[in-house]
Amino acid sequence: MIKAKIVGAGGYGGVGITELLLKHPEVEIGCLVSLSDTGRRMSDVFPHLRGFCDDVIVSPEDPKNKEPFDVVFFSTPDGVGMQTAEEEIARGAKVIDYSGDFRFGSVERYAEYAEFIGRDPVHKAPALLSETIYGLPELHEITTDQKIVGNPGCFAVSCILGLAPAVEASVIDPKSIICDGKTGVSGAGKKPNATFHYPNRYDNMNAYKLAGHQHVVEIEQELGLLGDKDVQITFTAQVVPVCRGIMSSLYASLDGQSADAILELYREFYRNQPFVRVFDAKTPVSIADVRGTNYCNLTVDVDQRNNRLRVISHIDNLMKGQASNALQNMNLMFGFDQETALAAPGQYP
Amino acid sequence: MIKAKIVGAGGYGGVGITELLLKHPEVEIGCLVSLSDTGRRMSDVFPHLRGFCDDVIVSPEDPKNKEPFDVVFFSTPDGVGMQTAEEEIARGAKVIDYSGDFRFGSVERYAEYAEFIGRDPVHKAPALLSETIYGLPELHEITTDQKIVGNPGCFAVSCILGLAPAVEASVIDPKSIICDGKTGVSGAGKKPNATFHYPNRYDNMNAYKLAGHQHVVEIEQELGLLGDKDVQITFTAQVVPVCRGIMSSLYASLDGQSADAILELYREFYRNQPFVRVFDAKTPVSIADVRGTNYCNLTVDVDQRNNRLRVISHIDNLMKGQASNALQNMNLMFGFDQETALAAPGQYP
Amino acid sequence: MIKAKIVGAGGYGGVGITELLLKHPEVEIGCLVSLSDTGRRMSDVFPHLRGFCDDVIVSPEDPKNKEPFDVVFFSTPDGVGMQTAEEEIARGAKVIDYSGDFRFGSVERYAEYAEFIGRDPVHKAPALLSETIYGLPELHEITTDQKIVGNPGCFAVSCILGLAPAVEASVIDPKSIICDGKTGVSGAGKKPNATFHYPNRYDNMNAYKLAGHQHVVEIEQELGLLGDKDVQITFTAQVVPVCRGIMSSLYASLDGQSADAILELYREFYRNQPFVRVFDAKTPVSIADVRGTNYCNLTVDVDQRNNRLRVISHIDNLMKGQASNALQNMNLMFGFDQETALAAPGQYP
Amino acid sequence: MIKAKIVGAGGYGGVGITELLLKHPEVEIGCLVSLSDTGRRMSDVFPHLRGFCDDVIVSPEDPKNKEPFDVVFFSTPDGVGMQTAEEEIARGAKVIDYSGDFRFGSVERYAEYAEFIGRDPVHKAPALLSETIYGLPELHEITTDQKIVGNPGCFAVSCILGLAPAVEASVIDPKSIICDGKTGVSGAGKKPNATFHYPNRYDNMNAYKLAGHQHVVEIEQELGLLGDKDVQITFTAQVVPVCRGIMSSLYASLDGQSADAILELYREFYRNQPFVRVFDAKTPVSIADVRGTNYCNLTVDVDQRNNRLRVISHIDNLMKGQASNALQNMNLMFGFDQETALAAPGQYP
Repeated sequence: MIKAKIVGAGGYGGVGITELLLKHPEVEIGCLVSLSDTGRRMSDVFPHLRGFCDDVIVSPEDPKNKEPFDVVFFSTPDGVGMQTAEEEIARGAKVIDYSGDFRFGSVERYAEYAEFIGRDPVHKAPALLSETIYGLPELHEITTDQKIVGNPGCFAVSCILGLAPAVEASVIDPKSIICDGKTGVSGAGKKPNATFHYPNRYDNMNAYKLAGHQHVVEIEQELGLLGDKDVQITFTAQVVPVCRGIMSSLYASLDGQSADAILELYREFYRNQPFVRVFDAKTPVSIADVRGTNYCNLTVDVDQRNNRLRVISHIDNLMKGQASNALQNMNLMFGFDQETALAAPGQYP
Repeated sequence: MIKAKIVGAGGYGGVGITELLLKHPEVEIGCLVSLSDTGRRMSDVFPHLRGFCDDVIVSPEDPKNKEPFDVVFFSTPDGVGMQTAEEEIARGAKVIDYSGDFRFGSVERYAEYAEFIGRDPVHKAPALLSETIYGLPELHEITTDQKIVGNPGCFAVSCILGLAPAVEASVIDPKSIICDGKTGVSGAGKKPNATFHYPNRYDNMNAYKLAGHQHVVEIEQELGLLGDKDVQITFTAQVVPVCRGIMSSLYASLDGQSADAILELYREFYRNQPFVRVFDAKTPVSIADVRGTNYCNLTVDVDQRNNRLRVISHIDNLMKGQASNALQNMNLMFGFDQETALAAPGQYP
Repeated sequence: MIKAKIVGAGGYGGVGITELLLKHPEVEIGCLVSLSDTGRRMSDVFPHLRGFCDDVIVSPEDPKNKEPFDVVFFSTPDGVGMQTAEEEIARGAKVIDYSGDFRFGSVERYAEYAEFIGRDPVHKAPALLSETIYGLPELHEITTDQKIVGNPGCFAVSCILGLAPAVEASVIDPKSIICDGKTGVSGAGKKPNATFHYPNRYDNMNAYKLAGHQHVVEIEQELGLLGDKDVQITFTAQVVPVCRGIMSSLYASLDGQSADAILELYREFYRNQPFVRVFDAKTPVSIADVRGTNYCNLTVDVDQRNNRLRVISHIDNLMKGQASNALQNMNLMFGFDQETALAAPGQYP
Repeated sequence: MIKAKIVGAGGYGGVGITELLLKHPEVEIGCLVSLSDTGRRMSDVFPHLRGFCDDVIVSPEDPKNKEPFDVVFFSTPDGVGMQTAEEEIARGAKVIDYSGDFRFGSVERYAEYAEFIGRDPVHKAPALLSETIYGLPELHEITTDQKIVGNPGCFAVSCILGLAPAVEASVIDPKSIICDGKTGVSGAGKKPNATFHYPNRYDNMNAYKLAGHQHVVEIEQELGLLGDKDVQITFTAQVVPVCRGIMSSLYASLDGQSADAILELYREFYRNQPFVRVFDAKTPVSIADVRGTNYCNLTVDVDQRNNRLRVISHIDNLMKGQASNALQNMNLMFGFDQETALAAPGQYP
């Protein structure tokens, strides 16, 4: 039995990992930390947890936050995890951070990312950057030696998983990639704002951050590593009136391969990955099929007329795009079966 | 390990019990029967079940449907279960029926119900009526001797649980009861129709069946049994644009009791019931708190100015209102802990 | 051509009256006032108005706000209109106030209301209270002599119109009235909050303000005036995931009248009212039928078994519940046909 | 005053043009024809029209359907309009057809389209093909000589308007075009089906018809005419849980032009078009801004890093994508101002 701490427990990422850990036979939640809901029971903030997680949320200054835990989840925005990750590791914890803080393997790459999104390019824990890993277990082997993991961005998961086989096999032109992403509203977090006020969001959709979305850098980094060449994508973030779910439509120029060959390439690539499912273009797939789960469903298609790859990637942004992917990482970091507490279908309808 | 058969597997009630049985450590799904989706894999009908339940759905005529099972769920409309329940029991099964077929304890009461809803008043398995029980475990003790259970109607669960303590204690006038029910759309089942076509349902709500909803008879029966007197309710069914969830607002004239006294009465009544939670009027409660679970959350309030009880009852119509309540019954009929596969929070948001 | 000023232009009530005035052949919008969006064009705040209303919103301190206008709409919360209504009238304006400020005809009644909702019971413009009128033209004759009108609350409109014929005819017990109201989210206004953040509101519903909703006082006042006796209601406010629309289910004990008699009573009462439509219980009615319009659709039903009146009242909370009702008042105050700019169906689906 | 007939009155396209014609000062609705709702009043099928359009819908065999009308709208699927359009024209009518029947100017092009969508390639009214015009008034001059118009497909409107300026100016590679379209559910029409049953559609999205959507042919035809060269697009149709609205994200390789130059190009192209609005990438635009209107809002952007044009095109699929565009055509065919009954903002929220 290991003990977990969740920093940022009051947000969607925090409640997501809480729900999952409650199902995990090897983990006990030891501490919930949050700035916003300090002093309230977790089940007062999230009433569906009544009787399941009634612990009081503590502030970062609380002595409980200084106790040692086996695993610490930073479900926090950029810049938070890097401030105390070293401390946590020094106290014996393994760290999984949801933000961009530990997704990049060098101070230079981090600085590039930070500048892209308008943050201070100087990393606060540079020594950890050589130890961290991009936490997408389908692409990177996460072992029990791993002390720190940068859990990927939600859009990034959908795009990288949807393009990785094609990029690695060099069947597409790396300069031709277009990622058209549609996300549910929960991706923007729990804090209310005018854009996601119900009357403005129902029956509405829009593109946003056309000038540059924060997930572009990591998508280009990861695909670049796979293809061993420069990848530059055009990425469009759009939000539609669903709560959970990302559907990314991915396009790239092919060298003439058939749909069958590409489909086989994808199936082979993900043969041993329990959480990625590959479908041909005739099989109906929708985000409801992955809602509430760690699965990524990929529809792999070739527009033969135009010699173009088209992949539709479906995930739950709060699960494979966040909390359940974090748990998959945790399972691997502690030597548990990676499917523990994750091998379950969602609920329909 | 017991073996289960689900008749009506292709509907919402069928997929609901399938999802739950997949989590149950003591049950194996042995047979899926449906008229509409015969020959298809369960996971083709419900793609979120891929890898979890890939069994082929068989027709009622299939030899597999004649094999013996330990438990048979009839997730079917009125009139189906009564045709073969005796056969199933003869083959050794225990039967849980979702329809009105086995909710009434005598041919007379059944006839009254059948007439109310415009069906043939002659029951096809009258001998079973003396053996069946109204499957609301909070009111009726379900034991391992029980061979057949009539799983309650969704609106009925919300109303009966919300009124039972007050009726039993005789603190309300049984002629003054008004039940104002709002249901999510899934209550109407999986078959598409004009009323629940998305463009007609989003941003819409309406009352229906004002002339008489089929759940009225069982609500009046159950409350009457508790209060040992005639209960006659005014019931209004309304549908709002949510998928899952029933919120019933229940009103009745009081004899002058205080909110505190009534609250205490409710808390005492449900003290040993793990799936009913009682709240005062100040605690925020919403159907999201019970979504995907077997819980019934009751807000218990007194309008002191008018000397009137007001209870807001919240359930998931597909869970406590159908599949998970059926599983709770099954657990009790087989001597399992009634919370097995049910003691879990839902997912939020 | 008359000139209008809208105070509170940046909210839903402000944009609603703006949309309507743009269609009105006799009115020109002369000034838009708002605290929150000062300095922005109306069409930057509400982009659908681009090319139709590009005026800059001014602050209350702006000299333009001191110019004379023929009609001033206060689409503002309680306490705002009463501060400057006298000034506006002195400058020659007629005033229509959306809040509770001018719904009550005496300082005593206002104080009662203010105390009920926890506000300062001292009215700031007591002299106007004898001149104001409750702005529900179906019940009160609004003439061109009228200088000030208190536009009714949205829930109140739905309940009063639904009960007025029965109360006036004394066919129901005035102590037995229960109003079960369900509102769309827009009723809570444009300001984002946690309750109406999309991920918390989709697929959710809840009751609120059980201790006492602000519209109770005016419902009781208006019904009391009609019936010439004390009326005390139990009112439940509930919110469902629709944007626009209120559906109120209204219950009261009858003296034995038939459904036909009651229906005839309602039809007679509203015979000359163009914006109220009366239906029997068999006709399907839903809030989509009145969405975007000034209509109130009433389903009038009798639960014969229990000798109880049941009326389902359907309005668009932002229209008959707010802006279009205000325009109806304006039409009458200026001697225009009351249907001007209002006699139009909504859009479906 | 001209007299209009609507064939297919019982569908969304029929009710849409009905609503618009009710506002038109020069048109009277003379006849409503439908297969499905024959004998019912229009206002029984669409209750929001009560008092506005209570005409009885007649069958195609009804004598009334053989009377002469000035304009006939075929709001019908492929293959219907071509059967009687010649008759209607012979009786003196002008015809506007919503389907693919009259979108193509020769039997060859029609055959190509019909084969693409799996229909009989032989046109039933070939003589009309040389007289018809593709009814997008922003690209084709519609004059009073025009007897028949093929009203464009909804996705096609959004894509063509979004790409026309760039294609005409030859600034993009015509082989590089990708159209990623997201539509609201109303695009699929009024007939209920499993895909758009509320419980399956809320909180869901999916791509469909990956093998080839019927609007591809007309998009390629129209863009090809503009650019005078072969255009071949990759088109992805996706459906999201909104009722009304299409948002199409359009991508193509540029020759190095700046965002400013492209923006100027678009503004110039649409300078005299009242229903197309052009925005830069910094201005927030959403489909709510065009809901219920004939407007097309275009966000014009250049991904400078990748030298790629990106246009986000926003329309209401039932308006500019169908009924209001049809009315714009009618206005031009009869010499009315093209904005008649169309120059109005929608309703928000």
